[in-house]
Amino acid sequence: MLDVTQTPLKALLKRRRPGYCLEAPFYTSPEIFAADMETIFQRHWIFVAVEADVPEPGDSTVVDIGGTSVVIVRDDDMNVVAFHNVCRHRGARLVHDYKTSVGNLVCRYHAWTYGLDGQLLYAEHMGDHFDTACHGLKKVHIRSLEGLLFLCLADEPPADFDVMADLMTPYLAPHDLRNTKVAFEMDIIEPGNWKLTMENNRECYHCAGNHPELTVPLFAEGFGFAPEQLDEAGRQQAERYACLVNDNHGAWEASGFPSRCLEHLDDMVTGFRTERLPLDGDAESHTLDTKAACRKLLGRFNDPKSGALHFWTQPNSWHHFMADHAVTFAVFPIDAEHSLLRTKWLVHKDAVEGVDYDVENLKAVWVATNDQDSTLVGYCQTGARSPAYEPGPYSPHTEMLVDKFCNWYVGRMTDAHGA
Amino acid sequence: MLDVTQTPLKALLKRRRPGYCLEAPFYTSPEIFAADMETIFQRHWIFVAVEADVPEPGDSTVVDIGGTSVVIVRDDDMNVVAFHNVCRHRGARLVHDYKTSVGNLVCRYHAWTYGLDGQLLYAEHMGDHFDTACHGLKKVHIRSLEGLLFLCLADEPPADFDVMADLMTPYLAPHDLRNTKVAFEMDIIEPGNWKLTMENNRECYHCAGNHPELTVPLFAEGFGFAPEQLDEAGRQQAERYACLVNDNHGAWEASGFPSRCLEHLDDMVTGFRTERLPLDGDAESHTLDTKAACRKLLGRFNDPKSGALHFWTQPNSWHHFMADHAVTFAVFPIDAEHSLLRTKWLVHKDAVEGVDYDVENLKAVWVATNDQDSTLVGYCQTGARSPAYEPGPYSPHTEMLVDKFCNWYVGRMTDAHGA
Amino acid sequence: MLDVTQTPLKALLKRRRPGYCLEAPFYTSPEIFAADMETIFQRHWIFVAVEADVPEPGDSTVVDIGGTSVVIVRDDDMNVVAFHNVCRHRGARLVHDYKTSVGNLVCRYHAWTYGLDGQLLYAEHMGDHFDTACHGLKKVHIRSLEGLLFLCLADEPPADFDVMADLMTPYLAPHDLRNTKVAFEMDIIEPGNWKLTMENNRECYHCAGNHPELTVPLFAEGFGFAPEQLDEAGRQQAERYACLVNDNHGAWEASGFPSRCLEHLDDMVTGFRTERLPLDGDAESHTLDTKAACRKLLGRFNDPKSGALHFWTQPNSWHHFMADHAVTFAVFPIDAEHSLLRTKWLVHKDAVEGVDYDVENLKAVWVATNDQDSTLVGYCQTGARSPAYEPGPYSPHTEMLVDKFCNWYVGRMTDAHGA
Ligand code: FES
Ligand code: FES
Ligand code: FES
Ligand SMILES: [Fe+3]
Ligand SMILES: [Fe+3]
Ligand SMILES: [Fe+3]
Repeated sequence: MLDVTQTPLKALLKRRRPGYCLEAPFYTSPEIFAADMETIFQRHWIFVAVEADVPEPGDSTVVDIGGTSVVIVRDDDMNVVAFHNVCRHRGARLVHDYKTSVGNLVCRYHAWTYGLDGQLLYAEHMGDHFDTACHGLKKVHIRSLEGLLFLCLADEPPADFDVMADLMTPYLAPHDLRNTKVAFEMDIIEPGNWKLTMENNRECYHCAGNHPELTVPLFAEGFGFAPEQLDEAGRQQAERYACLVNDNHGAWEASGFPSRCLEHLDDMVTGFRTERLPLDGDAESHTLDTKAACRKLLGRFNDPKSGALHFWTQPNSWHHFMADHAVTFAVFPIDAEHSLLRTKWLVHKDAVEGVDYDVENLKAVWVATNDQDSTLVGYCQTGARSPAYEPGPYSPHTEMLVDKFCNWYVGRMTDAHGA
Repeated sequence: MLDVTQTPLKALLKRRRPGYCLEAPFYTSPEIFAADMETIFQRHWIFVAVEADVPEPGDSTVVDIGGTSVVIVRDDDMNVVAFHNVCRHRGARLVHDYKTSVGNLVCRYHAWTYGLDGQLLYAEHMGDHFDTACHGLKKVHIRSLEGLLFLCLADEPPADFDVMADLMTPYLAPHDLRNTKVAFEMDIIEPGNWKLTMENNRECYHCAGNHPELTVPLFAEGFGFAPEQLDEAGRQQAERYACLVNDNHGAWEASGFPSRCLEHLDDMVTGFRTERLPLDGDAESHTLDTKAACRKLLGRFNDPKSGALHFWTQPNSWHHFMADHAVTFAVFPIDAEHSLLRTKWLVHKDAVEGVDYDVENLKAVWVATNDQDSTLVGYCQTGARSPAYEPGPYSPHTEMLVDKFCNWYVGRMTDAHGA
Repeated sequence: MLDVTQTPLKALLKRRRPGYCLEAPFYTSPEIFAADMETIFQRHWIFVAVEADVPEPGDSTVVDIGGTSVVIVRDDDMNVVAFHNVCRHRGARLVHDYKTSVGNLVCRYHAWTYGLDGQLLYAEHMGDHFDTACHGLKKVHIRSLEGLLFLCLADEPPADFDVMADLMTPYLAPHDLRNTKVAFEMDIIEPGNWKLTMENNRECYHCAGNHPELTVPLFAEGFGFAPEQLDEAGRQQAERYACLVNDNHGAWEASGFPSRCLEHLDDMVTGFRTERLPLDGDAESHTLDTKAACRKLLGRFNDPKSGALHFWTQPNSWHHFMADHAVTFAVFPIDAEHSLLRTKWLVHKDAVEGVDYDVENLKAVWVATNDQDSTLVGYCQTGARSPAYEPGPYSPHTEMLVDKFCNWYVGRMTDAHGA
């Protein structure tokens, strides 16, 4: 069925009801999807990869943000640079492998040859009037936040990336992500709009009923709860949890691991949130047995039980950093009703597979959890197709961050498309 | 190729030439398909299921009319009720199985729990200000015509359903469909616009050349014929057939089986047609050997040779009721060029498979016939894509009911979109 | 992602920069694709088949130009005629087989029966008022240029087909294509806009790096080169090649084989180009071992080493005619991002497979080359999807004919859509 939004985007943005999920066209309309791609994904900092994807000079990786293909390259000075993955001759895609290693970037069509700095080095038969200097690859803005790579396709990227970087660096630095390697990665296509994938990530109201593997080392209280529904035992439990978190924050920060919550999900252009949280009982990590997946710990950690640092960024990522490994998640919209979720598991770069870690154990929890989430996202996408769909209320106790995701989204769209 | 209708729908409706098939955009345009879904399928009574689909309390079945998913439930008082299949929280699809049996309707996302009356019984963590009474499932109008279930998605359904119900009840009652079971059902996707599927059903001009199994117990004269093309032998044959039909009508009606033709295909909003017709020779039913498929007869019948009651409804169904079994057909549009045809074979609820009936024998004729029709519908869809397509004339002797289908469709669309 | 062209077609046409490839919407927009189909493919002469496809009376072949299906028939007088492949009754597609042989053309739906001249011969049940004379098949213009079949869907085809025919007949006649048979044919779907398939065909800048099989018997100099980049050895080589071509032209023309270049790629509505060129060393044909693929030579040829006559037509074909066999290529657009390439290998009609020729050897070079080209076309299509795509410059020494293809296209579109 052709999906045509009857109400203009501007009107839909204006009438958004705070505390409620979005109207259906935000999840189903190809027109709004196109606006999302232009306004959100072409103008904001998008988490796309990690430095560990391109460890050596000449290593490259290709990321596609909608129709925009970008090649990320480690140059000979060990800088990470990024170019539009389009030949300047007749526009052929230049690099075809997700990850590869190159000396120069050579187009397969007519062999135009570019250096790792994007300069056009050689183009045959173009004649005397042709100026190679005008035909270098187009650069893309790229920033590494302690090894996490963010791209911005805009000419002038949002300036507050620096604010986020300044605040986040002390949190991330102890994990020393630049000295990790990608032990495993996987892509799945979720059958839903990218915003449903993000909303699903921003609450754990659904965790108890849907994520048996993930919830083992998690405190039920950490998902949020309606205080008025607690009985006396529940109230005491919640208080104990609050004290535990506070005590842990104090202890970790005293040891040089910043931990307290920073939240700028809807008050910055480059919105984000972070917090280091304890795991239940003697749990060390997000594995099936809750023990560290990798014997070789990351960065400055020497206690495998150091909780988990969580990092959420608008519009498209979340991350969990433990003492032994880290997991990063990036969402790439495909069309109005499909999204790619790319997950990478990082361990210390010197850890040896089969000796220090077992890949099956490392990946098990999040492979299962992603699959469960994908199914849930599909339920919402299917529901949003119905003319009977009507935005319902978010729980004020467990879905506050979903609401903030929508606030941020609506705010950014309104900024671009008028109030 | 992008399918954009150059001529406005209103103009296309206005210039429709009676006695001729429709212009190509009615079969190919996504825009007109969207208008069909909104005007025809969201505002009229749509045949979707039978009571035998949900025999017991808690039994449910899901039907999708375009993007609108509806769950039909047998409640604890044995009433058949229907709800939009969308959770009132964040809009997840609620019921995922085509047929299942439930106590309550529980959303898989955050476990909001609804009773069989649609009331929201339980929603965790929503806080003190949340009113469950405002978040029950949305009801959908549903009517049972002697066990045949019709939905209407409109707030105010066409009132003349009652007229049809009053007229049809005496015809259907003898078959006692409420005491049947679904012995077999199947869905096929026809490669054509839903109107082509319907038009194909409304004539038997194509039967002689395409339906070897179906035509065995049918009288050739019953398909319609040009009287001027008949020779003397043909004329006598046609007269004999007319007398036979008349005699049968008289005999059946005297036995309490209303049989004479009622036709309101294009003069009612809820258009329909019915007639009980004899089968040729000693044929009893629509099976390969023309004998009754089921030894246990339906309702008040005790003679397996009692002809076949036919029932056609606008916009999307047809039905054949014999003494031993019944077959119902419902068309669900998928997109401008595809339609789902759902066929159900009903037998007495106490009939035992393998003893009273053999499923292969029961279904054989219509499985073959549907497949043949699907191919023919595809031929028309393919033809309509050509710029050279031009509506041709209907046969005034064999395609009158196709013409009436188009009259009804054009009338209903004109009523909604202006003359 | 929905593909909507923001800039009107007229503006895009107007701002086309000569010597540069086209802007991205020309390769990606469904709207411009629809305009291409209407303006280019429905109003120009399109190469679609060869007479050898329908050698005997009653032989037919179906070709689809976009949504327009045409059946080409050899009638009883040995004329090749063409009709729209749509029944005049309810518009069913009439002929379903790519190639078949028929007495009359009989619709499978209700058996309307048309003669090989398109006249409606028989339609049952249509009544006394029905006039068969008004319901014959709609004719399509078709022309045979020495056995090469061109269709034009317009009411008034471009008149300059005759100019092309007059000029080309002497070149083609010696190959006597009317006395060939189709030894092999294959369709591939290229993942690109039809214009990218055509542009790829119009240059050999990419050949050295991508076509190992094709280039064996070709002179490197024949692909074009920047003279200023040649060293002394290269310059001598290029001169020798120019002399060789000139000498060959002289010798062939003296023997009755017109050979010199005729070029009307962008100065005629029915644009074309031809030239007979020598093959390198003792190469005779386009086979893996460069020897003639078929022992029985075509038409007036008795020396297997007679070079290759090339024939390019706007908008959709190219052909290579050797002494022993010929290869024809026709491009049929599918949608904005996909095109069908149909290749046919012709040999003398009396040649015997396994005796005079081996099909594997006959087809090997172009099966490989088509596959390589398809990949390259896909690279350009993928690149054009990026917002960073920008038309780059054509090489003035090797891509002149690509430029002329774009000139012709932009000219024809401008003619129809305004300057
Ligand atoms: S398109 Fe890259 S070299 Fe020609
Ligand atoms: S969407 Fe149904 S309970 Fe949340
Ligand atoms: S559609 Fe061809 S005979 Fe009816
Ligand atoms: Fe989850
Ligand atoms: Fe039929
Ligand atoms: Fe090529």
